Amino acid sequence: MSEAKKKLQTLGKELVEGVKKGKQPKLDVPIRALSNIKYNEKTKTLELGGKSSERLFFNVGHVKKFAQTLEVAKISKQLLDLQKHASLRDMFYMAKRTLPGTNTNLVDEQSESDNAIEDLEVVTGFSREQLNVNANKNGSVAGHVVIEDKGDTIDWARMGSGGWSIPSNVEEIKFKKVDAKYVLYMEKAAVWERLHEDKFWDKQKCIIMSSQGQTTRGLRRLLQRLSSEHKLPIYVLCDYDPYGAYIYSVLKYGSINLAHMAESLTLKDAKYLGITSNDIEKYGLKKHFIKLKDVDVARLKQISEYDWFKNNKAWQREFKAMKAFGAKAEIQALSARGITFISDQYLPEKIKNKDWIE
Amino acid sequence: MSEAKKKLQTLGKELVEGVKKGKQPKLDVPIRALSNIKYNEKTKTLELGGKSSERLFFNVGHVKKFAQTLEVAKISKQLLDLQKHASLRDMFYMAKRTLPGTNTNLVDEQSESDNAIEDLEVVTGFSREQLNVNANKNGSVAGHVVIEDKGDTIDWARMGSGGWSIPSNVEEIKFKKVDAKYVLYMEKAAVWERLHEDKFWDKQKCIIMSSQGQTTRGLRRLLQRLSSEHKLPIYVLCDYDPYGAYIYSVLKYGSINLAHMAESLTLKDAKYLGITSNDIEKYGLKKHFIKLKDVDVARLKQISEYDWFKNNKAWQREFKAMKAFGAKAEIQALSARGITFISDQYLPEKIKNKDWIE
Repeated sequence: MSEAKKKLQTLGKELVEGVKKGKQPKLDVPIRALSNIKYNEKTKTLELGGKSSERLFFNVGHVKKFAQTLEVAKISKQLLDLQKHASLRDMFYMAKRTLPGTNTNLVDEQSESDNAIEDLEVVTGFSREQLNVNANKNGSVAGHVVIEDKGDTIDWARMGSGGWSIPSNVEEIKFKKVDAKYVLYMEKAAVWERLHEDKFWDKQKCIIMSSQGQTTRGLRRLLQRLSSEHKLPIYVLCDYDPYGAYIYSVLKYGSINLAHMAESLTLKDAKYLGITSNDIEKYGLKKHFIKLKDVDVARLKQISEYDWFKNNKAWQREFKAMKAFGAKAEIQALSARGITFISDQYLPEKIKNKDWIE
Repeated sequence: MSEAKKKLQTLGKELVEGVKKGKQPKLDVPIRALSNIKYNEKTKTLELGGKSSERLFFNVGHVKKFAQTLEVAKISKQLLDLQKHASLRDMFYMAKRTLPGTNTNLVDEQSESDNAIEDLEVVTGFSREQLNVNANKNGSVAGHVVIEDKGDTIDWARMGSGGWSIPSNVEEIKFKKVDAKYVLYMEKAAVWERLHEDKFWDKQKCIIMSSQGQTTRGLRRLLQRLSSEHKLPIYVLCDYDPYGAYIYSVLKYGSINLAHMAESLTLKDAKYLGITSNDIEKYGLKKHFIKLKDVDVARLKQISEYDWFKNNKAWQREFKAMKAFGAKAEIQALSARGITFISDQYLPEKIKNKDWIE
């Protein structure tokens, strides 16, 4: 039996035993709110503090959340029994049952079941993925890596022009061969296709990985496993804009609602490879500036005040420069210097010169 | 030399020869606007009419577009020479050069270079993909299919939990083995993961393919190639909402701005497999209704008035039912009946009973 399943069983048994002894059913749930989240200077991650709250069955204000948490625990146990995975949206529909003899649904919005699952994560100490609940799948990868997954042996170097499609859950992937010096993660699939066509991963002995839009938990876990299990440096390639800094921030330090998962999701040694303010000057990208909108400026201010950035000189210099420019620039602006400029010159130069920000 | 390259060369040579003879440089560009687009009842696709407009060099109103079209033709020729591909965004940055001795950029917005590329498509008769310009990559696929791509042999049945990541350009993929009875395309990656975990493609001898969000041109071309080259029926699985009908509509009949590509992008025989109004009743999905917003209702009205839907009884019944319900429902609502209900019962039943809409 998996450890997660054992834990769920123990949780259930303890509740039942309590009831038999005439005790009120309750859960002790660590608080997942800003008031209980700290930035740990030493480990360089966001983490949960020690505060927790009791969730009581005989309390009108608590009982719904109590029941929701137990419901997702029940469904998760069923999924583990069946060896099946559900998406967060599936979980919502499965939990949305009408309580017998009433017109009340146990959950009405996905935010409720999502919350219950996060509560279950902190209560059990197992990640949603280990509880067989997945989020969206996203992203592609290529490189000299061979993995084993669901009985298939997959060579990331032999995936044609498409690459291997990263699943939402990478917990059970086994690495059979990892022949790479670093991982380059980029936010844009089009940039990934550029580097892939140029066989950048082959020439540079690296792994290239991209999302399109969101950096999903599957992607973050895959990066984290390559970093911790194979000691590979992780370089992050983003647009020169507040959102780029935010992507890096989440990858490296974690996010507030997932502070309880910091250990398995953050990338303490991730380096921001570009685009930087220096690059703007060095590679003549001013011509391709896009004016910051008010919302970008507000975002920039917010990010520059993050605990982990506010005493970081390099990043403060970046934020100041971007504000002074009043502009952002995209990775693809490098294409104005030639279609393979990014592969042939920009990235190799940056990596050789250790021209990154930490 | 590729046919596309030859065509670009001919285009250039003809212009130069005209100039040498003292003629004004001009391009004859078929009009890509609603006024020149018709729904062909017979071929069941949107197509361009015969109207075209001259784009003259010595005309203040024309010269910019003329130069933009030639610029993207030049860049496309360079890409073909280099055997490299660019994204639409790359193309924009490459075309965004300042005209010597002026402060004027040849293009200022991506919409201009995008337009110029579409013009080049109609002028040359070659698709953007054949001109080595790609859009975004998106989607995953699994099934008993073996392809050859960029020298790699890829077995879609041996891709672990992730599947093969579909590239933005599928023109050069070679099908080595296609052992499937149909293709099931779905709009949601999470549903794809559900079916993939259940080995639906193996049990049902089919191919499962998904996007997340947009149905990109890469996906549409891949579906189209499987349909036309391998005579596979294409089934479309969407949410029960106006957007689901729209996805199906674009896949099957094409879209207005790509009417000139109808031949290679539409799926004349595509069938809409679900979710339908009948399913709502049959599978008790009313409980999981989500109220239509005003924007959904407006969208529904618009779609119901499409030329290709307005005389289609089955679809009109759908639109009427959805309006009467005033609600939409998601594919994942089926999970309320059990996590593998969709794989074990819903889809096999629908396909066996030919319970689809055309």
